[in-house]
Amino acid sequence: MNTIALPQPYLLFLGDTTEPGYAKTAFGLRDWAPERCIGEFSVPGATVTTGLPFLTPAQAASAGAKAMVIGVANAGGFIPPAWLDALVEAMEAGLDLIGGMHARLRDFPRLRETAERLGRRLIDIRIPPERIPVATGKARTGRRLLTIGTDCALGKKYTALSLARAFQSRGVDATFRATGQTGILIAGGGIPMDAVVADFAAGAAELLTPDAAPSHWDVIEGQGSLHHPAYAGVSLALLHGSQPDVIVVCHEPGRDRVLGHPDYPVPGLRETIELALRLGARTSPRIRCAGISLNTGKLDADEAARVIAAESERIGLPVADPIRGGDAFDRLVASCLA
Amino acid sequence: MNTIALPQPYLLFLGDTTEPGYAKTAFGLRDWAPERCIGEFSVPGATVTTGLPFLTPAQAASAGAKAMVIGVANAGGFIPPAWLDALVEAMEAGLDLIGGMHARLRDFPRLRETAERLGRRLIDIRIPPERIPVATGKARTGRRLLTIGTDCALGKKYTALSLARAFQSRGVDATFRATGQTGILIAGGGIPMDAVVADFAAGAAELLTPDAAPSHWDVIEGQGSLHHPAYAGVSLALLHGSQPDVIVVCHEPGRDRVLGHPDYPVPGLRETIELALRLGARTSPRIRCAGISLNTGKLDADEAARVIAAESERIGLPVADPIRGGDAFDRLVASCLA
Repeated sequence: MNTIALPQPYLLFLGDTTEPGYAKTAFGLRDWAPERCIGEFSVPGATVTTGLPFLTPAQAASAGAKAMVIGVANAGGFIPPAWLDALVEAMEAGLDLIGGMHARLRDFPRLRETAERLGRRLIDIRIPPERIPVATGKARTGRRLLTIGTDCALGKKYTALSLARAFQSRGVDATFRATGQTGILIAGGGIPMDAVVADFAAGAAELLTPDAAPSHWDVIEGQGSLHHPAYAGVSLALLHGSQPDVIVVCHEPGRDRVLGHPDYPVPGLRETIELALRLGARTSPRIRCAGISLNTGKLDADEAARVIAAESERIGLPVADPIRGGDAFDRLVASCLA
Repeated sequence: MNTIALPQPYLLFLGDTTEPGYAKTAFGLRDWAPERCIGEFSVPGATVTTGLPFLTPAQAASAGAKAMVIGVANAGGFIPPAWLDALVEAMEAGLDLIGGMHARLRDFPRLRETAERLGRRLIDIRIPPERIPVATGKARTGRRLLTIGTDCALGKKYTALSLARAFQSRGVDATFRATGQTGILIAGGGIPMDAVVADFAAGAAELLTPDAAPSHWDVIEGQGSLHHPAYAGVSLALLHGSQPDVIVVCHEPGRDRVLGHPDYPVPGLRETIELALRLGARTSPRIRCAGISLNTGKLDADEAARVIAAESERIGLPVADPIRGGDAFDRLVASCLA
């Protein structure tokens, strides 16, 4: 399986982004690999910030940065022309470039020529491994947990990372399995699920979560949503291929419309649980939902506690915000391991 | 959108295939483009035949063939070493090669060198168009029908071709939309859905079935099955992206286990209809099932008539075998257009 050794520490590049939901790569690195992030850089027009110091590429290189990570994604994963000058500036300052979009850095002649001239590397972490097999659907040893979303960009990766850490802190042998660019940057390996050719997507999920010791847990980063008008196929392939024993459904209270698709309502929690269990049972007959992970980042502590308690009462399962932790999160972890 | 102009007529290559289900490309060309097929060729061990005359590549070239089509697929779409001598022989006889597998002809050095030396073309029809957009989920004008399978290789393409012809014969403006290699060979264009990167699969289905006149029908070839352990993600992306007004569910009576995945039962018709309508309603709220297409090729005429009548009674919808036609098929067509 492809694993990647990346030049570190990073300067995080935010482009001209105004939508925080598109900067989840940068936020994820700040939160989960802070020791690898020394600052952020963006171009005029950007309003999103990670809170890290703003450094020019030259300042970052002086401070020890080895690479600039493109820490934002836009719909479709393209590199807008407005970013190119900044990417060239980074290479001229001595930094390699790391990209996780569908558009490959190496496909931009100006970037390729600059990299060749200066001896810099263009590292695309969204290129899947070669020769992924078709899924077999055969049962595997070991235990698996998959995070399932009601939408994109609302906490599936955070939840998986939090649960993997919590499992480990309780002495449970657990591995975080990354399926997207940020997760791969954090974990140092994985498979970029959404870049796999559709026929092999379930096979990629099987490859990512192989046979393991009976007590071992793979904690798998979910992708997309089974209700998403563009990405549901990816979500279903990941669900079928990962054969989870346990799912945890991830939601953001107040997210009423699908990000980038305002004609589409976000599905309810019960509907999401029921559909995921029904579809997941095809390859994992004993699949169960251990609880709900709520992203309460836009609520204050009192509101968050109220929403968490109310949803737990309404759904009848443990509900927690992993970022807030606490007793609620302990109950969610216990439910996963039960 | 990519369309392809292929050298014709074809010699159909059957490899060393013993499983008829894997030779659907060859059977489809024989049945739907007979004027383009002058014979078949295979290597020792093959037991599958199209019934066309067996011709060596040299005999086929003398008879006017311009290309040899690899008319079989194996699980995963690879080219086994046992086929390579035959492919080289075809080029030496003067034929171009047309392939529709995931493995690209051009990736085999021996084939590439032979083609370059002899001035032959290696044509891979499974390469999707460049720059497929992410699906928008927005409603489009015109009407759409998608065939939905209970498994692979049981008649989704045949059904779509039959319905498109039947619509046209009734004066309805209809276009067959191909999503796989055989359909593309027959139609001369389309998008190889299973070769699209997973994130763009629903977008590819939108691209394949664009805005059209309100009375126009796109009749879309389905792929895989929503219950398939390896390919359900492709099927769901195609369902979401094609936004069908009407589905027709395709099944083979007696097919109890998923082809190539004997641990998996084939789902029932009611279950398949219900799941497809539920999932499809996400992007096409008024989706309905017009009826069932049964592949009764393994039954005699009396058995077929009995099964068709019994299933129609049981399900409460028109049921027909498009290959057998008759009143039952007329009722299915009328139900689609109702």
